[in-house]
Amino acid sequence: MSIQASRRAFLRRGTLAGGGVLLLDAQPQPDAPNDTIKTIRSLRTIHGNFLDKPVPEPALETILQSSLRAANASNNQSYSIIVIKSRPMMKAVCGYQGGCALLYCADYTRMKASAGSLGYSYDPSTIQDFVTASTNAVVAAQTAVIAARSLGIDSLLTNGIHRGDMERLWRLLDLPQTHCVPIIALVLGYPAQEPAHLKGRLDGPGVIHQEKYHRLTNEEVEEITRKYDDKQRRLTLDEDWAAKGHKHYLDWYFKDWMGLGSKAPAQETQMLRRLKRSRFVEPQKET
Amino acid sequence: MSIQASRRAFLRRGTLAGGGVLLLDAQPQPDAPNDTIKTIRSLRTIHGNFLDKPVPEPALETILQSSLRAANASNNQSYSIIVIKSRPMMKAVCGYQGGCALLYCADYTRMKASAGSLGYSYDPSTIQDFVTASTNAVVAAQTAVIAARSLGIDSLLTNGIHRGDMERLWRLLDLPQTHCVPIIALVLGYPAQEPAHLKGRLDGPGVIHQEKYHRLTNEEVEEITRKYDDKQRRLTLDEDWAAKGHKHYLDWYFKDWMGLGSKAPAQETQMLRRLKRSRFVEPQKET
Repeated sequence: MSIQASRRAFLRRGTLAGGGVLLLDAQPQPDAPNDTIKTIRSLRTIHGNFLDKPVPEPALETILQSSLRAANASNNQSYSIIVIKSRPMMKAVCGYQGGCALLYCADYTRMKASAGSLGYSYDPSTIQDFVTASTNAVVAAQTAVIAARSLGIDSLLTNGIHRGDMERLWRLLDLPQTHCVPIIALVLGYPAQEPAHLKGRLDGPGVIHQEKYHRLTNEEVEEITRKYDDKQRRLTLDEDWAAKGHKHYLDWYFKDWMGLGSKAPAQETQMLRRLKRSRFVEPQKET
Repeated sequence: MSIQASRRAFLRRGTLAGGGVLLLDAQPQPDAPNDTIKTIRSLRTIHGNFLDKPVPEPALETILQSSLRAANASNNQSYSIIVIKSRPMMKAVCGYQGGCALLYCADYTRMKASAGSLGYSYDPSTIQDFVTASTNAVVAAQTAVIAARSLGIDSLLTNGIHRGDMERLWRLLDLPQTHCVPIIALVLGYPAQEPAHLKGRLDGPGVIHQEKYHRLTNEEVEEITRKYDDKQRRLTLDEDWAAKGHKHYLDWYFKDWMGLGSKAPAQETQMLRRLKRSRFVEPQKET
């Protein structure tokens, strides 16, 4: 089968079974998927090629409401969502532009203000507080992604906010210096061009574990390398890795994409510096 | 209107408009919601009162597939999902029991193994790597929550895994000592008892910001206190806060729930200790 023919076959199967086809392997298809499952199967990331077309207000309102429905620890909603409609601001904040962007921040500022106004001193200043708040922020963000997709609005979740000088976010958006850190930006909009296919996902050993953590065998690691090389699985960021002289896709990934080899020793990142400045890292024990 | 009558009225409206009714306030309802939006509006958290009834395998497979469809950085899926069906194990891991539990871990173990097998040295050892991987894990988890709800399966996202001695997770589940940290547990199943109502969510100032971060005024902070006190908004964890002698719900929240007052200076938490041991905290600059 030619690449074109197999690609057509993939797309046909994809139309029938969504992204699930790659994951099920030999298993029978469960009951016909409902609309929510179909929405989820159709999720795709648009890498910056959004039309200059705003998200309609009623849709944006529905997306924001949906986002807030996500579960959160103690119903304290320790996050902020900054709605950005200015395209230059979107670009400056996350590197991309779409119909609008929602910036999800781990944020205790409101709860601290409430506590203060009632005479309490609330100081959530540990990495545990950060993990709790960022988890709250991210479940809200993904709920917005799925709600948007159901309304025909595509998305890009990007940590582009953490690239370049992170301090720009504080300057551009007037963020509080403590207890508030942007976690993920969600760009919403309409693709300039339909993506050719859904990206596949690796499943099986190394991703899904049963009852306990499964340590990969050498054979399983080699099988994973082969899975990435299998073009029908659509796992790759770059389809031309072989033409670029790599034996395996993962060679391209580790060498060209990750730049491994030019290895620098780990040193303090701006993220750690920022988390400390934001009072999200508690004093550490002497080591 | 009596409390009972207003509650019935709330539930009637809730049936019509889902959780959205609390968020829309005076705004008109947008176009009729689609099934995905309805699913999201119906999300609720079951606090441990799950029946001893397993999640059917085809549903679990659909939920896992759906979970994997979530976006993730560079399609490297830097997470592991541990499927736990043993009820004693669920209890030991997260403190709750349901039809099954999915433990979402930030995890670079598989990618490290792939790199090693191809001769590369991959050492993602910064807090930035941790934030990226935990974000990947959480978007996958929330996608599972929404998929499950569409299949009539309820859920509890819990950070109970981080309470008590976290090291038990490594012992119980044979987790890798480095580059793998559990972020959130998702308990799935069927409620023993239908929750009486959906929890409301705070919106407006302090949660949603337009274009830039909005610093709350004193009046807005007081308005937030009143919103929590408004029983029709259903924002509270405890409905009997007034009977317990508190002026405001947030007094109950900060005093009884958070235990503020018995204030201890922040010191190294087991989360930070664990992240360092898991090689997710880079060496820090001298301060």
